[in-house]
Amino acid sequence: MIKVGIVGGTGYTGVELLRLLSQHPEVSVEAITSRSETGVKVCDMYPNLRGHYNTLTFSEPDAKMLGAMDAVFFATPHGVAHALAGELLQNGTRVIDLSADFRLRDVDEWSHWYNQPHGAPELLNEAVYGLPEMHREAIKRARLIAVPGCYPTAVQLGYLPLLEAGLIDSTQLIADCKSGVTGAGRGAKVPSLLAEASESMKAYGASGHRHLPEIRQGLADIQGSSVGLTFVPHLTPMIRGIHATLYGKLKAEPQELQAQELQELFEARYANEPFVDVMPTGSHPETRSVKGINTCRLAVHRPDNGNTVVLSVIDNLVKGASGQAIQNLNLMFGLKETLGLDAPALMP
Amino acid sequence: MIKVGIVGGTGYTGVELLRLLSQHPEVSVEAITSRSETGVKVCDMYPNLRGHYNTLTFSEPDAKMLGAMDAVFFATPHGVAHALAGELLQNGTRVIDLSADFRLRDVDEWSHWYNQPHGAPELLNEAVYGLPEMHREAIKRARLIAVPGCYPTAVQLGYLPLLEAGLIDSTQLIADCKSGVTGAGRGAKVPSLLAEASESMKAYGASGHRHLPEIRQGLADIQGSSVGLTFVPHLTPMIRGIHATLYGKLKAEPQELQAQELQELFEARYANEPFVDVMPTGSHPETRSVKGINTCRLAVHRPDNGNTVVLSVIDNLVKGASGQAIQNLNLMFGLKETLGLDAPALMP
Amino acid sequence: MIKVGIVGGTGYTGVELLRLLSQHPEVSVEAITSRSETGVKVCDMYPNLRGHYNTLTFSEPDAKMLGAMDAVFFATPHGVAHALAGELLQNGTRVIDLSADFRLRDVDEWSHWYNQPHGAPELLNEAVYGLPEMHREAIKRARLIAVPGCYPTAVQLGYLPLLEAGLIDSTQLIADCKSGVTGAGRGAKVPSLLAEASESMKAYGASGHRHLPEIRQGLADIQGSSVGLTFVPHLTPMIRGIHATLYGKLKAEPQELQAQELQELFEARYANEPFVDVMPTGSHPETRSVKGINTCRLAVHRPDNGNTVVLSVIDNLVKGASGQAIQNLNLMFGLKETLGLDAPALMP
Amino acid sequence: MIKVGIVGGTGYTGVELLRLLSQHPEVSVEAITSRSETGVKVCDMYPNLRGHYNTLTFSEPDAKMLGAMDAVFFATPHGVAHALAGELLQNGTRVIDLSADFRLRDVDEWSHWYNQPHGAPELLNEAVYGLPEMHREAIKRARLIAVPGCYPTAVQLGYLPLLEAGLIDSTQLIADCKSGVTGAGRGAKVPSLLAEASESMKAYGASGHRHLPEIRQGLADIQGSSVGLTFVPHLTPMIRGIHATLYGKLKAEPQELQAQELQELFEARYANEPFVDVMPTGSHPETRSVKGINTCRLAVHRPDNGNTVVLSVIDNLVKGASGQAIQNLNLMFGLKETLGLDAPALMP
Repeated sequence: MIKVGIVGGTGYTGVELLRLLSQHPEVSVEAITSRSETGVKVCDMYPNLRGHYNTLTFSEPDAKMLGAMDAVFFATPHGVAHALAGELLQNGTRVIDLSADFRLRDVDEWSHWYNQPHGAPELLNEAVYGLPEMHREAIKRARLIAVPGCYPTAVQLGYLPLLEAGLIDSTQLIADCKSGVTGAGRGAKVPSLLAEASESMKAYGASGHRHLPEIRQGLADIQGSSVGLTFVPHLTPMIRGIHATLYGKLKAEPQELQAQELQELFEARYANEPFVDVMPTGSHPETRSVKGINTCRLAVHRPDNGNTVVLSVIDNLVKGASGQAIQNLNLMFGLKETLGLDAPALMP
Repeated sequence: MIKVGIVGGTGYTGVELLRLLSQHPEVSVEAITSRSETGVKVCDMYPNLRGHYNTLTFSEPDAKMLGAMDAVFFATPHGVAHALAGELLQNGTRVIDLSADFRLRDVDEWSHWYNQPHGAPELLNEAVYGLPEMHREAIKRARLIAVPGCYPTAVQLGYLPLLEAGLIDSTQLIADCKSGVTGAGRGAKVPSLLAEASESMKAYGASGHRHLPEIRQGLADIQGSSVGLTFVPHLTPMIRGIHATLYGKLKAEPQELQAQELQELFEARYANEPFVDVMPTGSHPETRSVKGINTCRLAVHRPDNGNTVVLSVIDNLVKGASGQAIQNLNLMFGLKETLGLDAPALMP
Repeated sequence: MIKVGIVGGTGYTGVELLRLLSQHPEVSVEAITSRSETGVKVCDMYPNLRGHYNTLTFSEPDAKMLGAMDAVFFATPHGVAHALAGELLQNGTRVIDLSADFRLRDVDEWSHWYNQPHGAPELLNEAVYGLPEMHREAIKRARLIAVPGCYPTAVQLGYLPLLEAGLIDSTQLIADCKSGVTGAGRGAKVPSLLAEASESMKAYGASGHRHLPEIRQGLADIQGSSVGLTFVPHLTPMIRGIHATLYGKLKAEPQELQAQELQELFEARYANEPFVDVMPTGSHPETRSVKGINTCRLAVHRPDNGNTVVLSVIDNLVKGASGQAIQNLNLMFGLKETLGLDAPALMP
Repeated sequence: MIKVGIVGGTGYTGVELLRLLSQHPEVSVEAITSRSETGVKVCDMYPNLRGHYNTLTFSEPDAKMLGAMDAVFFATPHGVAHALAGELLQNGTRVIDLSADFRLRDVDEWSHWYNQPHGAPELLNEAVYGLPEMHREAIKRARLIAVPGCYPTAVQLGYLPLLEAGLIDSTQLIADCKSGVTGAGRGAKVPSLLAEASESMKAYGASGHRHLPEIRQGLADIQGSSVGLTFVPHLTPMIRGIHATLYGKLKAEPQELQAQELQELFEARYANEPFVDVMPTGSHPETRSVKGINTCRLAVHRPDNGNTVVLSVIDNLVKGASGQAIQNLNLMFGLKETLGLDAPALMP
């Protein structure tokens, strides 16, 4: 069994790690930390876990104890992994960071968007961006994984085939994204109340959002050069799910590409990807079809006006966070990539 | 009192007309028709109307009875107004059609999208497109109004100042729209069930939708020439509301336009519009802020990448249908434009 | 115009007072106080009020300024009205308190449930319990009104005809109540987040709740002697609305009462009540049928087993708070009882 | 592997069987029937199953083909299992019926509530009511199982310890139940639309409901004599979940029973039940804590007025239908009772 610890387990990505790992045959959660809930059993805080983890109890974060693990997940606010990751790596513990701490290679950009100095620039060099559909081989060899953000995952998987094939004008990308409210975390904030957020839809961060530089960097890696992107996230009255609607202007020559050719491109690119499902031509994937699972479902459309539209849905807490983190762990430890991640979505 | 009739009053736009007109001091609803519900009292079908319209009863549609009205609203499936409008107009009854029957000037395009021959091409010439912010003077003189669709209203009001000022490339418009489920009507369809549509988000019609030609026509009228538009509607798990997120590429020269200048442009254009509310710079309007009312709230953003983003919200049943219909009626009969339409939104 | 002030206007009952009073032809809101939001315009905090109250701004609570009003509403946490009411009454300002400060006549019981000493026991004598269907004449003469709680309103109106007629065993009353989340207020608490409270149902306070003594007192007033009541409230995933399901064991003789006789009893009792709607035999009122309005809709059932079941729905923010407060104001100032309260519910 | 067939697999209990069985290591779904969807792949109808059951296709119901199975689940409208069960049993195929066809032992009562003659009275004698917490040993030996209804499961498990111990007056039971909308099935009906059922709460069947005789029969079996029950179900704006609030009047002697003693009674009764979770004293179980799983969570309260209140939550599609059906199958085939049913609930 692979012994793992979770740092900062009281948020939604923490409890989702516990839910998913309870079904993983090769992983044992040995420790979970939380300063605020030290001494509380996880099943007392999260009643869905009653009957599972009956003795697992939140403890103070402790580098020595965590250093005895094979791997440690960080499900923490930004900055925490900076402080602890180095010591863990020295002890031979692998680090899978669900926060943004190691996602951006540009230290200054990180500081700009997260309003604090970068705490571990010396580790950036070996951090691997944990999007297996792009970086599978590097992940297998990695000691430190930066798990992609939820929006960046949905957007990159949607644009990937088009950018790799050079079909669209990469200076004019538009990603209109809709997220359920768990994307805002478990903090007690008025705008996240049911009475405020239900029966309503709104954009936020329309003039700039933290995930923008991450998406730009990821798309540039795919593309091989910088991209121009407009990204507008929206708050949607549902618990889980991201729907990314991605617009791309076909280049001059590909103008003659028909829907069927785009379909084949997507199917070919993702033929061997266990967690990317290209739906049939003309489909409109629903976020509920991935509720609770690690799959990204895609559909590609070709309206008759020069654009292509890709629809990409994920569960923000699974493929957008905890599930993808486990997918990375499976790769790092030489396990079957889908281990513990193969149940169907809950529907309806 | 202005005597009005409603044809096809059992759907959501019908009951919304009744709700709004109950507060209108100058209108009396004298008749409401429904083949399927003939003989049923409206307050038995719609319990929110108990205590109002205590005797109003659905009757068979009857041209003579309707011809005795000052105005008739059509809240009907497509094609019904074609059959009846001509006779009513001859009797001097004004017609306010909430369906799509008279929205498109191009008969062939109408037939293409609605899968039937156009039933009254001879009336198209005098039909006025009932968007007061564009056609107020024509509406005042009109006998036949084509009330704009819900998506077209939200999209046109958002793009209007930018297109009139010639600031954006009108060949590359992208309108990403999100609608509550009442947009799909009151028909009993599996995809509209709470168990299917809640806790989920999906696009539909991504390769083409009936509102596309209407929006194109409206934007071309504003622009003075044809436009290139990609329009993707999405089903959102809420009852009411449309959120349109509108992307426009600023032309070369206006590239230097700052957020504040765009803000002033919008404020100036809508300074005298009673039902368009330009929110302060940096705002993100929520659909709930217009729940039940005839207002369109707008915000304009200027990310640092050559695009402008307009956020436009309406209540699809009010400014997107029944409220706008009453606004038209007020204009046609020389009443104060806001009469009966001045209550605040229900929030929370 | 009647000049009114609102103390503590940032919560849901405060904004609901503003929404409703904007439609009241005889009331002018002259002041609204909030320590935390002093200097903020109400329409900046509540975008549904944009276009209404364009200059009204939150101010520090100030007894002198409030003393210049004809009436002051308290939409405050418990204890605040105790401190201010006396001085206002001495100035001739009438007080309409939406909090629980003056609802219980028993000072000790109040202290027990609200965990603080009662701050104005000398005023209890003249406080009138503002349930017009029980105390209309006293309300007309009152200077100080204790507006009933939301659950107490729904429960008392449901049991009233049965208890007045002496038909049920008053020692065995069971009130199973379901409330939307605005009942928990606008405080930022984790259990009220959309991600926590939606897609779920739970009871709370099953072993005892603050509204229990108020309901007991009210039912005892109706009954003329103390009652035995079990009251279990439930949190329901919706914004507004209370559904009270009330069980009563018919006494020996009334066992032969049929559904029709119970129906007639209810209809007779409420024949002249403008805000109580007895629905036809066999009905099941929906909370949405009273969304935004001051009506209580009732239905009475008679299963064949010795019990009667009353279904009672209100909007917790209107008939359960702000609307009932205005109904009281109308009575106190000799206005038509329904003034400003006659729009239909928003549905769907 | 146990070969199973599913008759009538297009409804919510059908797809839920497929979802759960995909995780069952000892079961292989060999056939699924649907007259309306013959020839359609299950993963085309239910996108959450894409990647599972890639070839399983709806077929015409065929007794011979079904007779080759080890067990057949009926997820059908009432009456269908009557017609087919006999022949299957003769072939040695075990039948697990999720419909109401074999739940009531009284043929006349069945006909009364289901408006049709009973089609297989000769099988009633050997049908076992599939509530393992009551009838585990009989289930192990059974060939024909009547899976309990959703409300009856939640109600019986809640009252069971109290009735077995003889603590409450069984002539005065009151079960106030709240269900998510999947309880109404997947039929396209106006009242089940999101636009109608969300943001609202209502009772239904307050004067009588089909589950009433089933609950009465089950409680009488526990009690050893007939019971008096008032049962009112409510439609709640959520997809899944039942919350039963159960009221019982303590008999004279047990009046002195304290909360702690009731707690111990419940804990003792369910100490060895893998799917009943007695929560700590003072708890209020949430339906979301059992979303997607086969657990019933209970809490018992003792207000100070002679009553006891039991709170019982299940997922109506799992413990209330498909999960309990699989629990029965496990017992019938000598497997571990929890096999395939041990994942935690999805939360949030």
